[in-house]
Order: sequence, then structure tokens, then C-alpha cells
Amino acid sequence: MTSPTLTLAQELIRRNSITPEDAGCQQYIAERLAKIGFANEHMPHKEVLNLWSRFGTSGPVLVFAGHTDVVPTGPAERWQHPPFAAEVHDGILYGRGAADMKGSVAAFIVAVENFLKKHPNPKGSIALLLTSDEEGPAVEGTVRVVEALQARNEVIDYCIVGEPTCEKTVGDTIKNGRRGSLSGTLVVQGIQGHIAYPHLADNPVHRLAPALTELAATEWDQGNEFFPPTSWQVSNIRGGTGATNVIPGTVEVLFNFRFSTASTEEGLKARVHEILDRHGLKYQLQWELSGEPYLTGSGALVDALREVIRGTCGMTPELSTSGGTSDGRFIAKHCPEVVEFGPLNATIHKIDEHVPVNDLEILCKVYEMVLEKLVA
Amino acid sequence: MTSPTLTLAQELIRRNSITPEDAGCQQYIAERLAKIGFANEHMPHKEVLNLWSRFGTSGPVLVFAGHTDVVPTGPAERWQHPPFAAEVHDGILYGRGAADMKGSVAAFIVAVENFLKKHPNPKGSIALLLTSDEEGPAVEGTVRVVEALQARNEVIDYCIVGEPTCEKTVGDTIKNGRRGSLSGTLVVQGIQGHIAYPHLADNPVHRLAPALTELAATEWDQGNEFFPPTSWQVSNIRGGTGATNVIPGTVEVLFNFRFSTASTEEGLKARVHEILDRHGLKYQLQWELSGEPYLTGSGALVDALREVIRGTCGMTPELSTSGGTSDGRFIAKHCPEVVEFGPLNATIHKIDEHVPVNDLEILCKVYEMVLEKLVA
Repeated sequence: MTSPTLTLAQELIRRNSITPEDAGCQQYIAERLAKIGFANEHMPHKEVLNLWSRFGTSGPVLVFAGHTDVVPTGPAERWQHPPFAAEVHDGILYGRGAADMKGSVAAFIVAVENFLKKHPNPKGSIALLLTSDEEGPAVEGTVRVVEALQARNEVIDYCIVGEPTCEKTVGDTIKNGRRGSLSGTLVVQGIQGHIAYPHLADNPVHRLAPALTELAATEWDQGNEFFPPTSWQVSNIRGGTGATNVIPGTVEVLFNFRFSTASTEEGLKARVHEILDRHGLKYQLQWELSGEPYLTGSGALVDALREVIRGTCGMTPELSTSGGTSDGRFIAKHCPEVVEFGPLNATIHKIDEHVPVNDLEILCKVYEMVLEKLVA
Repeated sequence: MTSPTLTLAQELIRRNSITPEDAGCQQYIAERLAKIGFANEHMPHKEVLNLWSRFGTSGPVLVFAGHTDVVPTGPAERWQHPPFAAEVHDGILYGRGAADMKGSVAAFIVAVENFLKKHPNPKGSIALLLTSDEEGPAVEGTVRVVEALQARNEVIDYCIVGEPTCEKTVGDTIKNGRRGSLSGTLVVQGIQGHIAYPHLADNPVHRLAPALTELAATEWDQGNEFFPPTSWQVSNIRGGTGATNVIPGTVEVLFNFRFSTASTEEGLKARVHEILDRHGLKYQLQWELSGEPYLTGSGALVDALREVIRGTCGMTPELSTSGGTSDGRFIAKHCPEVVEFGPLNATIHKIDEHVPVNDLEILCKVYEMVLEKLVA
């Protein structure tokens, strides 16, 4: 079993590009795309490599977005098939990045090659946006390329992110948005003291408890057509010296919102402060926004992708906004229609990450058919 | 400035008896008491030395109870006066144990010597109960001696514990009881999971919060004439893996009751379980009773001690049950009247522990006068 998509995926997996390394992937891709008429623009930032590669000058502009970096392998000796060998056994391609997301990147490129053979003069433009920073801090990657495009008013109309979105069968899930992620580090102040003299102390755990109860019970929003309700969760709580006869002086709580587009960062912050203040707490609270939510409700891209998947995979994909954050949130600031569609996500970030070779063929076909619908 | 009480206190302080060491203190005391007719019974248990030394066979029996061990010095170089040198400067005796409680032990002995000179044939008996385990686990010390006395039906009528009870002026405070101490280690079970998928997890911190709120707000009792209300305090709380994207699987809470005689161990346990159960928590809870409460409401000993202090110190001592636990709780199981009276407690367990020499003279006088009132 071999195919251009498989061969290219293997070529990429064999380059050991643990984030933020690219290990030559983008150079290899740029050369391959140059052969079919793409103009390459390398946009390195610090240790991160980014590639903006475009075919055509007219609109509409359809972008395939993804990353060439991968997460670490963990203990390589525990892999049944070496993580950078890209071995195929019984129709399954094994390797770090097979599903997340060198398989999709290979499918992008072969789809574009196939499409341009049939339509050497498409009515719109096609571009690839690749970074080596998606699995890392995501600070010097996609966000920088989008800033550059915005700065020169270079329009994007449609974007397909090749993240692994499918749950059980390739074709079962499209992500048309993602929740936002907002974290807080809360330190509630009390007064430390001996447990035998509680009137001389002020127990911050006792002070916190009613506010914590209210925070945990609050309905932040009801979600909306595309998003589940916003969720607030404590990840860590720490108070006390370890000694059993000392009332602690402070208690620290780390918490996180996964929030829908029915709420805003500023609204959630204000409501948390209101609760803490109303309970009379003395506290410090540091916020960190690690991802704004985005949503592509409907439009030509979602419609085209769903129709193609129905025809190719024989099922109607679910529209989902669940899961973690992706670089889609950066692109959505500059592009009205961003969707994510890629292979099964069951083995990503795990030992023996793998993808069925046939699923890569299906992805390549889907990507090519979407090009047919939108820019042919 | 010198006196038999000061000289004896210095003799004891110069023996470096960090708990559970006795460093020869009890042997020295036993020999001194033997000279005036006391019968000594050494009752060592494991590494702990205990002394039961009694004069007379008739009743009533008045016991002076205390300990020869001391807490560690901390960094000795930070002491202005070496901790085992027992130096006197400007009428102040410095050293580890000066206030807690070799000063009181010296005052006991000199008081007894003075008393027996005047009353060679008292109507009752006098005894000393000393241990080297009060500052440690308190498992092999006073409790063992009391068990031995109980086993042979040896009665105690009155007991004065020489713990440092005074706050600002010697004579200002008698302790006629102590609160109990009951600790719990609570582990609330949840289901660990990724913070992006809260519906697949069950956050134990969120589950705990309402129960914690109720526990912190509960009035366990209103105290009584001699005790402040029972206090419940969290000393430590721990939940979370450290990772900020993981909902913890469990949260651990260490808490402690300081409880009055208006509540019981079993009653408090039942109420905590009722609250945890009513909130539907899955939990494990381990209990540890580190001290039962005791109370000597009134009686001949309290009356005599208060009258003597009024005459000697010129003030009416307050009856208090505050502070930590003491060995008085063990003796109270076998003795109807237990009170604690000793020097100022401001410097105990601290660097440069000290006691005014004149306070030791006052203590010696008070102890002697109580003997006059109860066994002359």
C-alpha cells in the first residue's frame, strides 16, 4: 500500500520536529509547492519557523492551516513502532505526528497538487499557513503570520485547519469553533495563628468556602446553538503549612474557565470579582487569557465541507466546539470562516500515535473536493 | 541574689534534657526528696523516665505534677544567654526550661522542704509526679504513672500541675481545665479529568465547598461557665496535581476541634459525618483524639489556691481553660481536683526563655501555703 499522501506523511514524520523544531519540514514543503507555482514566504520569529505559501492573486482565498511541530514522544522504548520511523503495519501508519498533524499536512499538499492538475487556472487563490509553534506557547507562530497578513490587508476568505477532529470514524466531526480559556490564580489572605487560639487568627480556608461554593454553583451562561455552557473548574487548591496545629495565613486556588461565545472575558472577570468582593475576601487575583473563543456559525465553507464529507464518507459530520484550544482562534480574527477537519484524535499525544492510511486518502479527497466547490 | 529555689532551678536547667531526655534530673530530685523522707518509685517506659515520689501514707494526697524534659533550643547561637547556662542577669533567670517548667519543679521541691520543716507530721500525704515525656508524644509519661496508680487503687485527691499559666503577672491565671483536641483527616473523592471535558469528571473541590462552608459556620456549642465555645478549624487543604488543565481526583482537608466539656468526642464526630453525608460526599475520614477535655469546676483545691494567690500576689487569679493540652488531662481521669498554676508563659518554647527570680520565690511560697491549707 502506497500513495503520494502516505509517502509525503512518512517523509514529514521522519523529520524529528519536536516543538518548536521544524527539522526541515517547511523547507521541504516550500520546495514542493514552489514546483507547482506557489510563492513562498518564510516568516521566522525567534526559534519558531512559519511558512506562508500562496498560489494565485485573486479571491476568494482558501487557506489550509497547520503545524509541522509535534509533541515529545515520552519514553521512546515504550513505543511498539519507533516514533520517527513512520512504519506501516496492516494499513496503519505509526509515528509521532501521524494524526497530529503531519498526516493532514501531507493530505493538504497532495490535494492541492491533484486539484491544480485539473484546474491549472482556478478562479481564486490557495494558500498554506504552517508553523512550528502550535504545540508550544503558540506565541511566535500562527498569530505572527496573521498579524503580517492583517498589516498588509491580505484577505483570507476561508480556512481549513487540519487538526484531528474526528472521534470514532473519519468524517464524524467538524469543529466550527472553540471555547475560550481563561485562568485565574487566586490567593485569599487570612491571618496565621495557633489552632488553639482561633480568635487571634483568621482562617482563609473558612473565608473562602462560601465564595467557592457560589463560584462552583454559578451558571455563567447557558451556552448557545454551538457551545455548551461556560464551565468554571478549580484545578488546584493549597493552604496550610503542613503542621496540624497552625491556622494557615493564605490559601491559593487555581481555576479555569472554558467559555462560550455567550460570555466574554471581561464579563466573566467582573462576575468573579463581584462574588469575591461580596463575600468580603481579602485577595489577590491574577488572570491569564490563554485563548479567546471563536465560532463560524455557518457559511459557504461549512456548507461545502459538510456536503463533501457526506458524499465521501457517507455520513453527516457533527458540528462541535468541544475540546482544547487550537490555532483556529488566531486565524478567526482575520477570517470570517474557519473550520477544523482532520483525522481521528484518539491516539494524539500518546504512545504509538497512528492513523489509518486509508483515512489520509479520504482526507486528501475531502480537501480536494472542497477546493473544487469553492475556488475551481 | 540567691535562694534555694533559684539554685535548684539552675541545677536542673544545666542538665540538657531535651525531650525525651531527663539528663539526670529525676535521679537528682529523687535523692533530694529521699533525704526528707520521700519514697521514690522510678517508672521508666521505653525511653521515657518517670518518677513517683511520695511522703506519707494517709489522705488527703496532694500531688505536684510536672516534667523534667524541655523543648529543643532552636539555633543556640541566637540566644543572648546560652540555653543551658542558667545565667541570672538583672534578676532574670535565663535558660531552656526556666519557665516550662524546671522553675516550677524547683519551687515544688523547696516548698515541700520548707513545709515539712514546719510540719514534720502532716495530716495527709504529699507526692511529686514527674515525667520526661510531656513535650513529646506524651504516651509513655504521666499517663503510665496514672495507670499504675489506678491499678493499685492509690488515690490522689488534689493535683497542682506547674505548667506556666500566667499571662502578664505571676498570679493572674489559674487553669482549672483544658479543652479537648480532636483531629480529622478528610479525603473527598471525585473523578479526575481534563478541564476541557468537565462533564467526564467530578470535581471534589466543588463537591466539598458547600460542606466546608457549613462546617466553618456551625456553632458546635456555646461553651459553658468555664469554656469558650468549641472551635473547628482547617489547618491544611490540598487538591490538584499542579497541572492547570486537570480536574483533581481528590482533595484532602486536615482539621481540628478544640472542644469544651459542653461537647463530646462522639457527638462532634457524628455531627461532622452528618454534614458530609447530607452533602452527598464520597469520602474517607480518619479521626485522632489527641486530648480529652477536663474541668475542675470548683472545690477545696481551687478555693485554697485562689485564696493563697490573693494573699501572696495581691490579685484574684482568673480561672481559664484556654491554650493547648497539658498532662492535666491524664491526671484528671484519676483525680477529682486538678489545677494548673505556674509562671509567666510569654517566653516558653522561644529563644531566651526566662523567668524572674522573684516569681520563682512567689511560686514557692504559693505552693507551700497551699500545703498549709490542705495537708497541714
